[in-house]
Amino acid sequence: MKILLVGATGTLGSAVHQELVERKHDVVTVSRTGGDLQFDVTDPAQVAELYQTVGQVDAVASAAGHVPFKPLRDLTVEDYQAGVTGKVLSQVVLVREGLAHVTESFTLITGVLAREPIVTGAAASLVNGAVEAFVRAAAIEIAPQRINAVSPTVFTEALDVYGDYFPGMKPVPLAEVVRAYVRSIEGRQTGQVYVP
Amino acid sequence: MKILLVGATGTLGSAVHQELVERKHDVVTVSRTGGDLQFDVTDPAQVAELYQTVGQVDAVASAAGHVPFKPLRDLTVEDYQAGVTGKVLSQVVLVREGLAHVTESFTLITGVLAREPIVTGAAASLVNGAVEAFVRAAAIEIAPQRINAVSPTVFTEALDVYGDYFPGMKPVPLAEVVRAYVRSIEGRQTGQVYVP
Ligand SMILES: NC(=O)c1ccc[n+]([C@@H]2O[C@H](COP(=O)([O-])OP(=O)(O)OC[C@H]3O[C@@H](n4cnc5c(N)ncnc54)[C@H](OP(=O)(O)O)[C@@H]3O)[C@@H](O)[C@H]2O)c1
Ligand SMILES: NC(=O)c1ccc[n+]([C@@H]2O[C@H](COP(=O)([O-])OP(=O)(O)OC[C@H]3O[C@@H](n4cnc5c(N)ncnc54)[C@H](OP(=O)(O)O)[C@@H]3O)[C@@H](O)[C@H]2O)c1
Repeated sequence: MKILLVGATGTLGSAVHQELVERKHDVVTVSRTGGDLQFDVTDPAQVAELYQTVGQVDAVASAAGHVPFKPLRDLTVEDYQAGVTGKVLSQVVLVREGLAHVTESFTLITGVLAREPIVTGAAASLVNGAVEAFVRAAAIEIAPQRINAVSPTVFTEALDVYGDYFPGMKPVPLAEVVRAYVRSIEGRQTGQVYVP
Repeated sequence: MKILLVGATGTLGSAVHQELVERKHDVVTVSRTGGDLQFDVTDPAQVAELYQTVGQVDAVASAAGHVPFKPLRDLTVEDYQAGVTGKVLSQVVLVREGLAHVTESFTLITGVLAREPIVTGAAASLVNGAVEAFVRAAAIEIAPQRINAVSPTVFTEALDVYGDYFPGMKPVPLAEVVRAYVRSIEGRQTGQVYVP
């Protein structure tokens, strides 16, 4: 399959990229500063341009999304909005603009904070909750195109940086998260939130 | 208790108002065009001004929140943003600005579309999912202040207007929805999403 992978140079994106290539897919990698194509997906005009550039693809996989982490009392309305712009609307626009260019499926990234809170995670929870509910809703309107979310807890490989924020919460190896992307892309389910 | 009720003149808000008054609470009613005080809660500056005007209260209950309903292919990024502004950030700011003015609890409004999709409901799902995840997250950071969400399906009393959008879905009488507000305000739980 021809797969457009957004956020392909990050911790998660690199692991997804490697596995998709090993599975003989033709992967077009995107990020703001690296990969095959440089586009900022928080800008709807750049998302439209990205699809014009890349043409028809079988699947889109997103592994990009930025949200501010701060104690709730320090989170401003601008911080919540930055999360919405950086991880919700960016992925919604990937779907919206992609409807005319994507044959099979969309796979979006969310995270455990949609379900389980941590201190400093209120904006991230809000954003992940939005993405997961959007995926369930979009699925019934875009069929036969499919859409799923991957909703991991903290990556084992990111414990050195983020571990202190997730006390006592079980981490997940990137290999398991990557498996959820494969399931979404090569399987046939839609409207699912995969918790790897 | 002294309770600030936002959206107090609407279908839901009027029913909540009536029950809270019957339960001997001192209710200050707010909407853009009616009630005791006229403020637009989508404007953070007006929310700050609202709390300055009303002073200390025991509880805040929100029954206001606007989201566009359209087929997914017609929903623009501006529509999703309007929903985020109209129902997510407005309620987040009610909590954020209220931390210094509210003794006991916040009760926010969300809805079944967080969990169950309907055609034309993608923006509403996104918005309700965001509010519910925010409530779970905020609860662990604002304690001993409490926060809950009320997440009803279509009101029996609104079936004439919205019934066609919810085929085969069981409606809920307003009296049950009002009960969830009472539970949130007079009970002691926090971080809950009450499904009346
Ligand atoms: N790390 C964890 O433990 C964890 C756990 C659960 C969920 N997640 C979620 O997984 C996602 C990826 O996390 P990560 O740790 O892999 O992040 P990361 O290492 O920072 O990688 C982010 C990737 O996205 C690209 N990117 C960022 N903003 C972009 C934009 N506006 N347009 C296009 N590309 C953009 C980055 O490249 P450029 O900088 O060149 O644009 C990079 O390729 C995030 O949404 C995160 O919330 C992470
Ligand atoms: N109707 C249903 O079946 C149903 C089911 C589940 C969930 N819900 C949710 O319940 C909430 C209330 O629904 P409803 O049917 O009762 O709505 P409604 O009848 O339209 O009432 C909305 C109330 O909020 C006020 N309001 C609207 N925007 C405001 C703003 N920016 N600032 C301050 N006040 C504002 C309105 O008064 P003004 O116009 O004067 O401002 C009115 O008092 C909504 O969030 C809706 O999504 C409804």
